[in-house]
Amino acid sequence: MDLKGVFEPRRVAVIGVSLSNPFHPANIVYNKNYYGYDSEVFAVNPRGGDLERRPVYKSVCEIPGEVDQAVVAVKARLVPDIARECAQAGVKSLVVLSGGFAETRTSEGIALQDELLEVCRRNSIALIGPNCLGVYSPPFTNSLFLPPERTTLPPAGDIAVASQSGAFLVDQILTRFKESGVGISVGVSIGNKAMIDEVSMLRHFAERDDTHAMVFYMEGMDRRAREFVETAGEVTKSKPVVVYLGGKSQKGMEAARSHTAALAGNIEIMSAALKQKGVIEAENESEVTSFSKIFSYYRNHPLRQGNIAIISASGGHGVITADLATKAGLKVPQFSAERREALRLVVEDAIKDIASFQNPVDLTGSASDQDFERVLDYLLAQEDIEATIILALPYTPLVTSFIGTRLGQVVRNLNKPVVAYVPNLAKYGMVLEGFELNGIPVVHSIEAAVEMLRALRLLALYCTRDGC
Amino acid sequence: MDLKGVFEPRRVAVIGVSLSNPFHPANIVYNKNYYGYDSEVFAVNPRGGDLERRPVYKSVCEIPGEVDQAVVAVKARLVPDIARECAQAGVKSLVVLSGGFAETRTSEGIALQDELLEVCRRNSIALIGPNCLGVYSPPFTNSLFLPPERTTLPPAGDIAVASQSGAFLVDQILTRFKESGVGISVGVSIGNKAMIDEVSMLRHFAERDDTHAMVFYMEGMDRRAREFVETAGEVTKSKPVVVYLGGKSQKGMEAARSHTAALAGNIEIMSAALKQKGVIEAENESEVTSFSKIFSYYRNHPLRQGNIAIISASGGHGVITADLATKAGLKVPQFSAERREALRLVVEDAIKDIASFQNPVDLTGSASDQDFERVLDYLLAQEDIEATIILALPYTPLVTSFIGTRLGQVVRNLNKPVVAYVPNLAKYGMVLEGFELNGIPVVHSIEAAVEMLRALRLLALYCTRDGC
Repeated sequence: MDLKGVFEPRRVAVIGVSLSNPFHPANIVYNKNYYGYDSEVFAVNPRGGDLERRPVYKSVCEIPGEVDQAVVAVKARLVPDIARECAQAGVKSLVVLSGGFAETRTSEGIALQDELLEVCRRNSIALIGPNCLGVYSPPFTNSLFLPPERTTLPPAGDIAVASQSGAFLVDQILTRFKESGVGISVGVSIGNKAMIDEVSMLRHFAERDDTHAMVFYMEGMDRRAREFVETAGEVTKSKPVVVYLGGKSQKGMEAARSHTAALAGNIEIMSAALKQKGVIEAENESEVTSFSKIFSYYRNHPLRQGNIAIISASGGHGVITADLATKAGLKVPQFSAERREALRLVVEDAIKDIASFQNPVDLTGSASDQDFERVLDYLLAQEDIEATIILALPYTPLVTSFIGTRLGQVVRNLNKPVVAYVPNLAKYGMVLEGFELNGIPVVHSIEAAVEMLRALRLLALYCTRDGC
Repeated sequence: MDLKGVFEPRRVAVIGVSLSNPFHPANIVYNKNYYGYDSEVFAVNPRGGDLERRPVYKSVCEIPGEVDQAVVAVKARLVPDIARECAQAGVKSLVVLSGGFAETRTSEGIALQDELLEVCRRNSIALIGPNCLGVYSPPFTNSLFLPPERTTLPPAGDIAVASQSGAFLVDQILTRFKESGVGISVGVSIGNKAMIDEVSMLRHFAERDDTHAMVFYMEGMDRRAREFVETAGEVTKSKPVVVYLGGKSQKGMEAARSHTAALAGNIEIMSAALKQKGVIEAENESEVTSFSKIFSYYRNHPLRQGNIAIISASGGHGVITADLATKAGLKVPQFSAERREALRLVVEDAIKDIASFQNPVDLTGSASDQDFERVLDYLLAQEDIEATIILALPYTPLVTSFIGTRLGQVVRNLNKPVVAYVPNLAKYGMVLEGFELNGIPVVHSIEAAVEMLRALRLLALYCTRDGC
């Protein structure tokens, strides 16, 4: 199934717009697309008429010319007939926002979903949903039916996301990505995944040139679990695949069962099988973002030994980083006396006698941009050091907003992953920007910095691609 | 030792101001206090003269009238003589910012520290440091020697903090507290803790009426470890004590040894001993803030059974919360058929058939403020439910900024801890404010919400006070 058309529709019918309620989900989708996206949108309501002086079509069949996609937000029992009309009109994909299908666990709901699926299959219509939140595919279309003033969107980027939970997509992905400066290529709420599911998305994301890594939020799979695992094993050879599995606890699994049409399988078995195939599992929300962020900067840098250097402006931060790195399975190798002496030689006189040149390196609060640059340059050139965490504290007086530009040059020359911790303060924005514009991702907790390098370590531990 | 005077000095000498470098630490401290704090400050430099047309005294003895405290930022080798002068002038406490003492691990540095300590002891002078970042004690004094434009300060509040690492105090406490809306009563960088150490601070914090919980960042203790543990056992009977222990890994411990004068003891033994005494250990940076935040809202609410309810606007969020709560040692008890039916009766018709009334309760994206209010009211009234996590998603269209006020009223009536997760978006500020002004702490990750209730569970597990 070629899903390109699903995510790049040119002409979209929004079926179910209300003539009286501007906050109806269909109206939100219609307006969003009319004002902000490249696809041409058409409002459909059986009563016809007009909406803000633009025509409302009584049926998708009345829309002049071809229609690629229909976004459907009508009562569940009306959806199969709508799908038939769409088939007649030559629509190639449906995004069904309506709930009331298999997720209700009623025989009526299940029958409606089966009927809808059957219509789509017979007519080769690609079906997203039902019971989904929509698709965000800039600059083509955005069928997420939430009011835009209540949500936010991250910049365009190279991470694709498919989520079984629409709300997870909205706040754990779109909001967090925005907050963390992670870009997204496409975000899909797959809902009840009657037809298009994680396996379809895995294949599609693998093919997309604009997508360099992908994230899945899943609460278990039933019949297609094996296929997902096998397909993932192929995809991880070229692109990192991150999953966050909901329902790993007994209580979580019960909760998953009560709100989704998917049969929650034994998620622990799935977790183990995915690891075998090189899939990287995030254990919490923070890791979802950290892993996505590091892969948007460095995706071909598995840490084969897991050896990292830590360069800090504070002893305490070095201690905490060493603790967290150890806990995360990274190694903080001891530096030889020769290396310590070499480091001592490269820094300015002011800190030669107060800095500690063990790993973690503590350059102290008196360190300057140059000290960081020279120490990083020396350490990244060492064969045993695979990556570095920089703890940059902009309140130390000799650190300037230029530090990131300096260190970015070192990274460009030596091509090893470097990540930075900068405390979360709006006024440190200049420092943050200097790092990120020069290829060094910044996070606001030491834990997240460690998580980023852990992702690259997992890439090596579970990597199935050539050269790992 | 009564430390009141250390934190509420009326007249402070800043010794070591530079006549030419306005960025000298002593100048930063002098200006900070001159412009922003209640204590009267006097600049001291042996050359005398003036600074911005204000007099510079050649010695602390020349300052007319009594001087309570001296903040010292001169070369280490000059400090003992400065201390003698201070003794002569009747100074009652010293905050020594200068480094170059025992932390250098040189015989000279150790001897200087011993000499300084001896002078202070003989003259009954309370000594903070040496090699410390200073003391933040609003509205009296702020001797943190960092440029104010490069740092931030949290609001006044009821959490006291003592940190072995000055930088930890600055970004893990002051910055994070500011970001999370946690208030601070006093923050102390104890540096080499030659005299005033964690034991002294523990006693002092216990006595302060403005302090309801306290946080310590420690990298091990030597001779006074046993005393700290015993004293903590007393303090936890009236106030929560949180510690974050750096150096628990081999690498972290080595790093701690290389940058601090303190002998890193066996931190694992200390961790176990502290738990026995009711001290709550944070395992990472995020917990330090979460624990501080919950204790500034609820400090007398140990969760004796650990039974919580989860009320969500999204199924996926419920699943994730149940997983994380289980992992954190909290229980998410099953609801009986009767309770589910009772919950179904209290919500609006619109969601009766789509919400899930199991625990976690999934009210769906169609829930309104009233639905949350009535469900919370019903659940908090149940004897087995000790606390509740609210997952409020302001992008669901019927949730308004009034939701927090409604739920806060329920909390006031039923007096059980409720915490809320609200995604991190500036425009959700109105929603956040509604919660926090009405007694419900808000965090921006599900994990942090779980951490907050975990703190109250730990309070019960390790509590030594009467009635636990």
